[in-house]
Amino acid sequence: MRTYNIAVVGATGPAGQEFLKLLTQRRFPVGELRLLASSRSVGKTVPYGPGELTIEEVGAQSFQSTDLVFFFAGAEVSSSLAPQAVRAGAFVIDNCAPYSLDENVPLIVPEVNPGDLKGHQGIVGSPSAATIQLVMALAPLHRVAPIERAIVVAYQAVSGSGGKAMEELSAQCRLVLEGKSVVPHVYPHQIAFNCLPEADVFLDNGFTREEWRIVQETRRLLHHPHLAISATAVRVPVYVGHAAAVHLELSRRLPPEEARSLLGAARGVRVLDDPCVSLYPQPWVAAGQDNVFVGRIREDSVYEYGLAFWVAADNLRKGSALNALQIAELVIDQGWL
Amino acid sequence: MRTYNIAVVGATGPAGQEFLKLLTQRRFPVGELRLLASSRSVGKTVPYGPGELTIEEVGAQSFQSTDLVFFFAGAEVSSSLAPQAVRAGAFVIDNCAPYSLDENVPLIVPEVNPGDLKGHQGIVGSPSAATIQLVMALAPLHRVAPIERAIVVAYQAVSGSGGKAMEELSAQCRLVLEGKSVVPHVYPHQIAFNCLPEADVFLDNGFTREEWRIVQETRRLLHHPHLAISATAVRVPVYVGHAAAVHLELSRRLPPEEARSLLGAARGVRVLDDPCVSLYPQPWVAAGQDNVFVGRIREDSVYEYGLAFWVAADNLRKGSALNALQIAELVIDQGWL
Repeated sequence: MRTYNIAVVGATGPAGQEFLKLLTQRRFPVGELRLLASSRSVGKTVPYGPGELTIEEVGAQSFQSTDLVFFFAGAEVSSSLAPQAVRAGAFVIDNCAPYSLDENVPLIVPEVNPGDLKGHQGIVGSPSAATIQLVMALAPLHRVAPIERAIVVAYQAVSGSGGKAMEELSAQCRLVLEGKSVVPHVYPHQIAFNCLPEADVFLDNGFTREEWRIVQETRRLLHHPHLAISATAVRVPVYVGHAAAVHLELSRRLPPEEARSLLGAARGVRVLDDPCVSLYPQPWVAAGQDNVFVGRIREDSVYEYGLAFWVAADNLRKGSALNALQIAELVIDQGWL
Repeated sequence: MRTYNIAVVGATGPAGQEFLKLLTQRRFPVGELRLLASSRSVGKTVPYGPGELTIEEVGAQSFQSTDLVFFFAGAEVSSSLAPQAVRAGAFVIDNCAPYSLDENVPLIVPEVNPGDLKGHQGIVGSPSAATIQLVMALAPLHRVAPIERAIVVAYQAVSGSGGKAMEELSAQCRLVLEGKSVVPHVYPHQIAFNCLPEADVFLDNGFTREEWRIVQETRRLLHHPHLAISATAVRVPVYVGHAAAVHLELSRRLPPEEARSLLGAARGVRVLDDPCVSLYPQPWVAAGQDNVFVGRIREDSVYEYGLAFWVAADNLRKGSALNALQIAELVIDQGWL
């Protein structure tokens, strides 16, 4: 069987770590595997399969003889290194912001828009975690009852900000439980027992970049460039698992039972929807799972044809590492590698 | 100066405790003060002013010679005892659900609809905490740019479920931080580091009673019985301080700066809105404060005349105890007592 030489930039963060686990779990045909990072992390070891791997410093020669490079290291690192990787002949799958709105870089959720891969120029983007779980739930509905309008209000886990944010949540919780005061480092304010309506930087229009990514990436992924969509993204004291409340205006009536059946049949989506027994998606339970979970599906009389639901998924898996790996599988399936 | 004999039913819970603090802080003209509860709490003492008071068992004779009775003990207790209190000649201010949708019982937020008090029959309802902070922000906007549609997605603190829920959050956080597993008691699932889209019981329409209260109480308070409004209410691991993301369709364009100026001039509302320096409302910071805080005010292109914002307030103070006490002050001011 053909194997692929892989490089991972940013393997020490939570999404990178999850990616290494998935490489083994999904039996991806890995040839050589190199873990790359800035000089700060060089020499660190990270677990891989039964053993461990050592981080190497990323440099101009890093991408020689590499088939696939995955970027989990933030927008700046992707911007500077992804073009180098492409020039060295590697195929790049990027999990960071810079390409998500670049029309030359396909943005892919394999269950939603696999056909968009064909326009690639060697780089493919994986959308933000909040967008991925949203479109996984929207696409099956949109195919039968086109979406006219969407309001998305997200509950975002701290792991989306990296490992230091997860440590900060633990440290702050301990301090509060001991009655002590907290000095924030990763976030501008305390995140323990608090909610911060600030995910990524603020834009001139008053939205955060994260909110604007949800808006623009969803339009791209659904091929609906004029979709009326708005978002509020709020950081909540949860380690892993993003969730969102979604209120939709559809172009025709879609009874909740039909929506449940459409979503239940969608690959990668699981419906958890029996309020009588408190069955609904929960971030804590979604953590570690591959599926996107949807529940609280109900008719919403705020619109003539309104539908509301609640969605949750592991932001590190389907929201990041798993989607990236599925893109690689798709690249191979479609014969680009 | 005239003083008023007061009874408080449910003084041992978080809202009742806050109410006792406010009686002193606001120098309410208290004559006799009796704290009433079921036999389970009888004999307990609670702090009041420099001393403490002992809980008495509530019974048929409890409301003799009482001017004002405040209910903080849940819907069942209000339903069975409030009519008794009225028959005994007391004026009832109820913080629990049963009267919130009863057209014979005015529902009052003093800054918003003080004139509605005149139809009372001896009982006045205080809306749910989520409704109060919402209408405090909506009313000043609605007066100049009538609201056509509102989507409200709430982040609700556990103190809204009582003191045991606050203890459960602490206990569960400790267990998780120690790597131990959690068995939930107050909520159907773990609340530590999780979000639960279930506040109060589920109705047949798929909404929770809490969500439906936001819908129906907002329509009543704004005198807008056909307002298109929908809500999702989610319990988050926060002790005190509800928040909500609000996306509005207005009947005319209202620039964010005009909205800020209207809200800044509204009694009981404070605008915290400078994203460049991460200034916005936060539940943790709103806790212990009387004001309703509004920020992240931005134009929302999802509607022709759209406006989005973020609101937070102390659910035990303005959301419950303070609003109840302000209703009492209004009852006295308007000469009903």
